[in-house]
Amino acid sequence: MPENRQIVLKSIPKGHLETSHFEKREAERPSPGDGEALVRTILISLDAANRAWMQGATYREAVKAGDVMHAYIIGEVVESKADGFKAGDIVAGEGGWADYVVIPGEKLTQQGPHRPLTHHMSVLGIAGITAYFGLRKIGQPKAGETLVVSAAAGSVGIFVGQMAKLMGARAVGIAGGPEKCAWLVEELGFDAAVDYKRGHLFGDLRKACPDGIDVYFDNVGGPILETVLFQMNQRGRVVCCGAVSQYDTDAPSGPRNVPGLLVVKRLRMEGFIALDWPDEVPACAKEISGWLKDGNLKVVEDVIDGLENAPEALIGLLHGENRGKRMVRVAPDPI
Amino acid sequence: MPENRQIVLKSIPKGHLETSHFEKREAERPSPGDGEALVRTILISLDAANRAWMQGATYREAVKAGDVMHAYIIGEVVESKADGFKAGDIVAGEGGWADYVVIPGEKLTQQGPHRPLTHHMSVLGIAGITAYFGLRKIGQPKAGETLVVSAAAGSVGIFVGQMAKLMGARAVGIAGGPEKCAWLVEELGFDAAVDYKRGHLFGDLRKACPDGIDVYFDNVGGPILETVLFQMNQRGRVVCCGAVSQYDTDAPSGPRNVPGLLVVKRLRMEGFIALDWPDEVPACAKEISGWLKDGNLKVVEDVIDGLENAPEALIGLLHGENRGKRMVRVAPDPI
Repeated sequence: MPENRQIVLKSIPKGHLETSHFEKREAERPSPGDGEALVRTILISLDAANRAWMQGATYREAVKAGDVMHAYIIGEVVESKADGFKAGDIVAGEGGWADYVVIPGEKLTQQGPHRPLTHHMSVLGIAGITAYFGLRKIGQPKAGETLVVSAAAGSVGIFVGQMAKLMGARAVGIAGGPEKCAWLVEELGFDAAVDYKRGHLFGDLRKACPDGIDVYFDNVGGPILETVLFQMNQRGRVVCCGAVSQYDTDAPSGPRNVPGLLVVKRLRMEGFIALDWPDEVPACAKEISGWLKDGNLKVVEDVIDGLENAPEALIGLLHGENRGKRMVRVAPDPI
Repeated sequence: MPENRQIVLKSIPKGHLETSHFEKREAERPSPGDGEALVRTILISLDAANRAWMQGATYREAVKAGDVMHAYIIGEVVESKADGFKAGDIVAGEGGWADYVVIPGEKLTQQGPHRPLTHHMSVLGIAGITAYFGLRKIGQPKAGETLVVSAAAGSVGIFVGQMAKLMGARAVGIAGGPEKCAWLVEELGFDAAVDYKRGHLFGDLRKACPDGIDVYFDNVGGPILETVLFQMNQRGRVVCCGAVSQYDTDAPSGPRNVPGLLVVKRLRMEGFIALDWPDEVPACAKEISGWLKDGNLKVVEDVIDGLENAPEALIGLLHGENRGKRMVRVAPDPI
């Protein structure tokens, strides 16, 4: 077992991300400076946005060639020179694809006692919070309205559909492949699911949404967004959460009917990220915990074992092979 | 003088609109049926949206080949079988490019006593109301914020910039050509104006908006929208009013950075039309009238004489040759 395995982004991809863009290396275990903590990585979050970070600065700094691949992680404090943190604390923060990382105390947060720990990466973590705020703050589905979510089988999508139903809306998912679509309906209770890979998205969506679409929770952008916009009802809301169709490419394409259809149908499109309402996270977590406790929210996670498998796991995620939140387990939960 | 001159849209343009798409003809003076009024056209509104109507149904029915060209008009009632209207009333409604049109009573509105009548087509008409609601309802510029408006010398744009300043914002216009830009600053009081035809929009806009852009009032869509989005500040608002760059073409193009930049910058894009808040039009008209009375709002109108000149006048408008609201005078104001 090496001291500190790291995976580095060797070069910035031009087209699709491939394993050859990454390089494994071994490094010394770093030492924390004043105000910092040394953290042993337990779980690494994999997100489509990781690929967008390689395209340039977004809501955070870009990943550059030569960097240890950036990641949101959950880990255990090994040594702390940061106020408020001590060895053994379970924390989350911006780390990297490595066994050990040093993180400044002001960028670490303590994780609550809830177990399994993986839930802090999914339903009670960024994925669940993203689904929740996207619905409550932007989409605001009303009882009887139709909501459509793309990447519906993904980390955020599975919660968007289930939460939308808890809010009284009809939930329709867009996903790739007949198995995923059947699973969304049969296992997660979506009212309908449409397989975009069949190649008849416009007609299939029309059949699944006979009353039109009031809220579209968009995780993909691109041609699917363009198609959905045509079926939006007057004063519909588009929750702009991500654009995964545009990340793994160097030739992005925008929906050709923007802004024209926004005017004609009086649509609102609005972007956000999960961290935009920090003061309201406790209330969000409380409502989600209530749904969990009552058995109203199914949690699906896709945990890949082994740091060395992170590159393939991220590439697979960009190709849509996951169901629910994908993460990499680097070390066991110490508790 | 023929009985009833009409101009017909002979065929739907594929690319640019040309005079050959129109045909003049003479017709009988129509007779109103029950509930209808015969109206003699005084003023015809010309709008970029007229071209969009030829692309298909929008917020109204499409113009089809063979139709007398549709238009918003102001006219005088000649004969009425509609309750609430009598000969001599000055009314507005959806008419056409013709000396005489028949309009159902429920689609006519009485025009107020304000003169000149042209103001009911500009500052107190759709153009002024569009600017007002776009700002008050969607853009919501705050004191000290920077607002950018495209087609700034157009019918709506001239009011957007002036009203934004009355609301305390800094107003920057985008227009075509150095003369228009100088005019916006010197005559209308814009803080700055940027000539997109110079070919350096990104850099010129950066210089004109050193603190970034908080509100973008978009009349054009397309590449200008794409450029502006990159300079929007966090939580900026895009007022989607029109997409004139996309009307006179059969190959529309959308901004390639949508929805990506909306997420990264937490932007809101929202479409509307002037008629969306009918209950609030009196309050809007009152505030605009106050600004007019106090000399705080300059009205610029571009009145073309003669029905026969409507095709060239609309084509010219699509090429940006007007300053302020363009309309065609078909007959003198009877009062």
